[in-house]
Amino acid sequence: MIRERSSENGSNLHTQQDKVSSQNLSQPAPVATVIHTPVAVADIPQRLFGSFIEHMGRGVYGGIYEPEHPSADEYGFRHDVIQLVKELGVNCVRYPGGNFVSNYNWEDGTGPKEHRPIRRDLAWHSTETNEVGIDDFYRWSLQTDTEIMLAVNLGTRGLHACLEELEYVNGAAGTTLADRRIRNGIPKAMDVSMWCLGNEMDGPWQVGHMSAEEYAAAVDKVAHAMKLAESGLQLVACGSSSAHMPSFGHWERTVLDKAYENLDFISCHAYYYDRGASSFQDFLLSSEDMTQFIKTVAEICADVKTEKHSDHEVALSFDEWGVWYSDIWNRQEQEWKAEAKAGLHHQPWPQAPHLLEDRYTVADAVVEGSLMITLLKHCDRVRSASRAQLVNVIAPIMAEANGQAWRQSVFYPFAAAANFARGIAYAPTIEGPLLSTQDLAVTPAIDAVITWDEEEHQGLVLIVNRDEHQSHTATVDCSLLPGVADSSVIIDCAQMLHENDPLMCNSPEETRAVVPHHVNLQNAINGCITIDMPEISWMAIQFHTLQA
Amino acid sequence: MIRERSSENGSNLHTQQDKVSSQNLSQPAPVATVIHTPVAVADIPQRLFGSFIEHMGRGVYGGIYEPEHPSADEYGFRHDVIQLVKELGVNCVRYPGGNFVSNYNWEDGTGPKEHRPIRRDLAWHSTETNEVGIDDFYRWSLQTDTEIMLAVNLGTRGLHACLEELEYVNGAAGTTLADRRIRNGIPKAMDVSMWCLGNEMDGPWQVGHMSAEEYAAAVDKVAHAMKLAESGLQLVACGSSSAHMPSFGHWERTVLDKAYENLDFISCHAYYYDRGASSFQDFLLSSEDMTQFIKTVAEICADVKTEKHSDHEVALSFDEWGVWYSDIWNRQEQEWKAEAKAGLHHQPWPQAPHLLEDRYTVADAVVEGSLMITLLKHCDRVRSASRAQLVNVIAPIMAEANGQAWRQSVFYPFAAAANFARGIAYAPTIEGPLLSTQDLAVTPAIDAVITWDEEEHQGLVLIVNRDEHQSHTATVDCSLLPGVADSSVIIDCAQMLHENDPLMCNSPEETRAVVPHHVNLQNAINGCITIDMPEISWMAIQFHTLQA
Amino acid sequence: MIRERSSENGSNLHTQQDKVSSQNLSQPAPVATVIHTPVAVADIPQRLFGSFIEHMGRGVYGGIYEPEHPSADEYGFRHDVIQLVKELGVNCVRYPGGNFVSNYNWEDGTGPKEHRPIRRDLAWHSTETNEVGIDDFYRWSLQTDTEIMLAVNLGTRGLHACLEELEYVNGAAGTTLADRRIRNGIPKAMDVSMWCLGNEMDGPWQVGHMSAEEYAAAVDKVAHAMKLAESGLQLVACGSSSAHMPSFGHWERTVLDKAYENLDFISCHAYYYDRGASSFQDFLLSSEDMTQFIKTVAEICADVKTEKHSDHEVALSFDEWGVWYSDIWNRQEQEWKAEAKAGLHHQPWPQAPHLLEDRYTVADAVVEGSLMITLLKHCDRVRSASRAQLVNVIAPIMAEANGQAWRQSVFYPFAAAANFARGIAYAPTIEGPLLSTQDLAVTPAIDAVITWDEEEHQGLVLIVNRDEHQSHTATVDCSLLPGVADSSVIIDCAQMLHENDPLMCNSPEETRAVVPHHVNLQNAINGCITIDMPEISWMAIQFHTLQA
Repeated sequence: MIRERSSENGSNLHTQQDKVSSQNLSQPAPVATVIHTPVAVADIPQRLFGSFIEHMGRGVYGGIYEPEHPSADEYGFRHDVIQLVKELGVNCVRYPGGNFVSNYNWEDGTGPKEHRPIRRDLAWHSTETNEVGIDDFYRWSLQTDTEIMLAVNLGTRGLHACLEELEYVNGAAGTTLADRRIRNGIPKAMDVSMWCLGNEMDGPWQVGHMSAEEYAAAVDKVAHAMKLAESGLQLVACGSSSAHMPSFGHWERTVLDKAYENLDFISCHAYYYDRGASSFQDFLLSSEDMTQFIKTVAEICADVKTEKHSDHEVALSFDEWGVWYSDIWNRQEQEWKAEAKAGLHHQPWPQAPHLLEDRYTVADAVVEGSLMITLLKHCDRVRSASRAQLVNVIAPIMAEANGQAWRQSVFYPFAAAANFARGIAYAPTIEGPLLSTQDLAVTPAIDAVITWDEEEHQGLVLIVNRDEHQSHTATVDCSLLPGVADSSVIIDCAQMLHENDPLMCNSPEETRAVVPHHVNLQNAINGCITIDMPEISWMAIQFHTLQA
Repeated sequence: MIRERSSENGSNLHTQQDKVSSQNLSQPAPVATVIHTPVAVADIPQRLFGSFIEHMGRGVYGGIYEPEHPSADEYGFRHDVIQLVKELGVNCVRYPGGNFVSNYNWEDGTGPKEHRPIRRDLAWHSTETNEVGIDDFYRWSLQTDTEIMLAVNLGTRGLHACLEELEYVNGAAGTTLADRRIRNGIPKAMDVSMWCLGNEMDGPWQVGHMSAEEYAAAVDKVAHAMKLAESGLQLVACGSSSAHMPSFGHWERTVLDKAYENLDFISCHAYYYDRGASSFQDFLLSSEDMTQFIKTVAEICADVKTEKHSDHEVALSFDEWGVWYSDIWNRQEQEWKAEAKAGLHHQPWPQAPHLLEDRYTVADAVVEGSLMITLLKHCDRVRSASRAQLVNVIAPIMAEANGQAWRQSVFYPFAAAANFARGIAYAPTIEGPLLSTQDLAVTPAIDAVITWDEEEHQGLVLIVNRDEHQSHTATVDCSLLPGVADSSVIIDCAQMLHENDPLMCNSPEETRAVVPHHVNLQNAINGCITIDMPEISWMAIQFHTLQA
Repeated sequence: MIRERSSENGSNLHTQQDKVSSQNLSQPAPVATVIHTPVAVADIPQRLFGSFIEHMGRGVYGGIYEPEHPSADEYGFRHDVIQLVKELGVNCVRYPGGNFVSNYNWEDGTGPKEHRPIRRDLAWHSTETNEVGIDDFYRWSLQTDTEIMLAVNLGTRGLHACLEELEYVNGAAGTTLADRRIRNGIPKAMDVSMWCLGNEMDGPWQVGHMSAEEYAAAVDKVAHAMKLAESGLQLVACGSSSAHMPSFGHWERTVLDKAYENLDFISCHAYYYDRGASSFQDFLLSSEDMTQFIKTVAEICADVKTEKHSDHEVALSFDEWGVWYSDIWNRQEQEWKAEAKAGLHHQPWPQAPHLLEDRYTVADAVVEGSLMITLLKHCDRVRSASRAQLVNVIAPIMAEANGQAWRQSVFYPFAAAANFARGIAYAPTIEGPLLSTQDLAVTPAIDAVITWDEEEHQGLVLIVNRDEHQSHTATVDCSLLPGVADSSVIIDCAQMLHENDPLMCNSPEETRAVVPHHVNLQNAINGCITIDMPEISWMAIQFHTLQA
């Protein structure tokens, strides 16, 4: 399936040597990119390969859960979807929202299903049957071998409900709430250690949204009391719901000033899509925005740490990121509001409607590959990330009702990183042709990160050509990775995402229209791998070393 | 029944021509008032003729509800009271409070009566049996054909309870809360569209009273989330509980600054009575205070709209107004507090005690007639109003236990406006004798409004002589009303409220001591109606036009 | 049992006459202290002899309550402990916390025990079985003839729960909540008049801790609504949890500014112990810190009263005071947190663990005697006080599991004051040798208060020698007490606490190692009693007068 390109604003390509030469604009850049001198960033946290399942649209119902499906297990979970989740390599899943959580009663999703209430979900204008809740999601997490990152409702509820939920989820047998969990069939503590304290509480769209000062006071209480209960928890405060919120920066500083010592993470959320960018080229360079976002929040964390003379670190949890065609959703939401104003609220709200089922292009996948490179390059500060979302809703995995489950284009760059990035992430110096756009000063067309597991002698190069028009040649010098100097670098596998039409998508009819292509690269010479990257392309190269 | 006049401070009467002539003080003003050049204000909203039923005193129990009464229907509602409510022409009823609501659990008044809890009502120091609640009041509203304007508890509860109440009341079948309503015998959504977000939250007497900033934050959350649920709702934020509160103005601005786009109304409350005024003449001129109140709040709304560059309008809901002898209540309250301090709280609190059963004089009725004229003259900004209250408690309708229901003096001016004011309200220019008092600069003795339904060729003049001592002659020129120029104005009916003793009241023994008198007016000449208005009098003149 | 002395920093002793004479340092001061010109402070409120029982450690379970104990009554309360509580003379007991209350649901401790939930107590990391709650504690209070001072949860709950608790506890029959109490076996209202509105809400360790502004807003609502329910209540707002909090002073002023008229008390909390002081001598002078604390808060109350032109008085409730070895607790808490971080939260939390079972020395008892003298000398402003705590937990009474109950050293000075201080407290002028330390400017070594019941002709001298090294002779001139001039002062009984080793303690094995010794004093001459006070000693002298 081919989406129409919405914007044809081009970009200008320059090399560092010849930034003003106009002739470069019309022909391939003659200058190769050199990627060298990798600098160790940090060990790669497995939580960086997290995802997100919200009770919305067909993410849960008709997504991970469809009891009538041929592949469903005894709990109603689709086995075909579980298989794809495992293949994707997701390690950690944020649940149950998102905006949904801000009017959610966690108790609603526990205990016998026949007693669970049916509710209105205000965030997504849907009917929530509560057939799936934390009890069930825990079972799913065991099957998918994923960590749960649990969000609490600070919209319509507060401290008291948080503490009860924590006790239900993690409490040792012997208290009324923990014993209720056991009676509900879960004898062991769920051991959920990461907790999101509300969701996007700065957003005026959020049920129970707050000012920075209100949220700081709320989160200070909640974080403190939850740590009194379990001091080993890792707590995520809401940061700004985007770097473009008016209170961005002020929000982070206010929250950290108030509650620094009891927090472990502050969240970042960012979505990108072509029509949301100034130009298609700007969309392809979305990772530059993410980079700036990370740097700004990391700097605030560092400043507050310094001011407080603290030994404690607050890291970033980039717990919503990805490509999302938010204009489609906005249109949908306006329609609902108009309907409701016209009195159509007498209709029951839909159950598990088709929402945000965006179809992703090759270009979207290249952008997501590029965003993942950015996350890895900043994994000293970004210690957790959740690609939003996992199934059906702005998702790498699509599940047809009573039918197949299939992979969208964005499945592949995530899976490559999640499955093969191990050890330490290295941010290399990149020298080569530059792009400039309306929004951005000169920026390298190529971006890359190297991961290297010294013990296993295994490495991964993730590399992306963000140039809308030009192909580029790049040489990745791995020789300075620790322990590589006297070895030979052996390429195991190289896969590329690229199509002549960057708007090509997978679809139920053509689920493998967009897949990575295996590429035969030349052998590495002196630890250097040379790659030809067509315009709008992403590549993952696995390698290992042999003692020379 | 005759009440003693409490204040004999006089006023000075001047004409515009001769403001200092002292001889005018002792004899009838020779100059007639001319009422001319009516300017269209706005279409008359039916909600302007709203009232208010609070769970207090005998407003509900022994008021609208008395199952043992011979006229009671299957639900326990008195049919004789319902008849008077219909006769009064009330269109919309605010419920269930008032101060009462700020410690009320809406669930208490739903479902089988035998399971409903009995509570202490802190606001009125009474025992609340919850025999009547939203389920029952909805049935009453169907019988009286009145719209419900439902107030939520922001005193002891908040967002979560509001959303649940909204779902119970208006939700479509299929959710647990809506289905509970259906199980409680109300299969259709109640379709309540006007919601008061708390009551007088600025008042230090209010359970859970707030600062302007606290309330603004609370109402911002509640209004936003309720509109997420139903974007067609019309939401009323609390304004100041009187124009004499220290935070008046600041409160309105703070609330509107924070939550403007999700609000549709901001409330005004004002009560007047003779002993509460600087003089009896000042009491008679109470509408001047109301006018100023309206103007001040309307200006704040306009300012905020301008500052926000908004297309959205926030109107005024004058949802408590009328004559109330608040000193009697204050005395009563002090007695209770003294009793409680003395340890008499061991006594159960009374059920449906006699509270605020003020007996209204002719003068009170003239003042209320005057206040209604003011509301009509500002109905472009005041789009909803509730005379407080409806039955027994500061009420136009009195209901004797197991006995008759009867009309107080204030019944009549309300009924005339509610039943006959249709189409567009017109504010005329009024030229004539002026009053001045200690409190007020010169003010016309006469006030009037004209309503005109061009389509039906029907009009109404409401006119009041607020002069404590002097009668006045007035001429109302209707010739400039649209479509009247070439017609003849035919007077259908003129009724006047006036007694030689302005303190005369109705009573259970003499329920018709004060009634409007039919007046035979001279035929209109060139669209001009001439009226002799004795001191302290109110008149309603219905007319129609015939093509000349 | 002998505790090791942790600090040996000495102090300097000076007389007023000869502050620099070094020879005084090495030998007994030759100058006697003269205690004269007693000035009436105020009538002694019985609530000054209050104590505190928190659900923590073995305060309740294994303290006042141990159904398996041979002395247990039908409700499970130990009779031996009750006897000691009566002997101690406690009049009023604060309950159920303390930090415990800030995550407590009062309902959990009501009704049939088999239905009561088991909870985690976050404050003390314990499992709370709720076998004892307000129902039970009320029964205990009847047996011990003590007033209950009830603290509400403002940490995880708020106004709504407070009002329900108040109705349950004090409500007259006929409402659902009061009738629930009756069904639970308590037909009469409990008549609790003193209510603590939260506990130490300024403390960052407190569940739901607040800023001064947040707490002021909360307490304003709660106090107002509770007084609407019962205007005779006496409400205690949280003051600072110690005079060393950064917000001390600002907190008190903010709270009183907001809620002055509805408050009756503001609380003070202070704990002292030797290792917590700059030197042992400073520890012995702890009452100087308490004095300053009282003066500062009393001044703020007076200022606010003046600013508000109020007739209403807000007094001080010194509702946590005593000696507490807080370093032991801090170490314990760090261990728990480390365990929890290491994942040991899978273990159920302990029930009624041994917590804060500090063993008190003679010196501790002398300090507590000194603190009690300070409270009495300021009982015009301190109208309530609670020594923390009563049984097992930093307690005068220790109860062995299934064993004996015994008195700690600190039992005695409290008991003497509680049992014999009657009438009016008199603060005398004290002239005599002075101490100075690193922390304190010159301060009399001796402190004393006289209480005098003119009607009964009974008096009490409480006197303390706070000097670490020197004995002192003191003369107490009682002749200026009202009605004494022409009488002879007859000493009835004099008891002294002093041991050569000031660190001597009682223990289960030696429960009477530290007891007051009876002292034979010389007869009073002209109303003057002369006493030899060894270093670190406390004495109580009961006297009466006979008409001369």
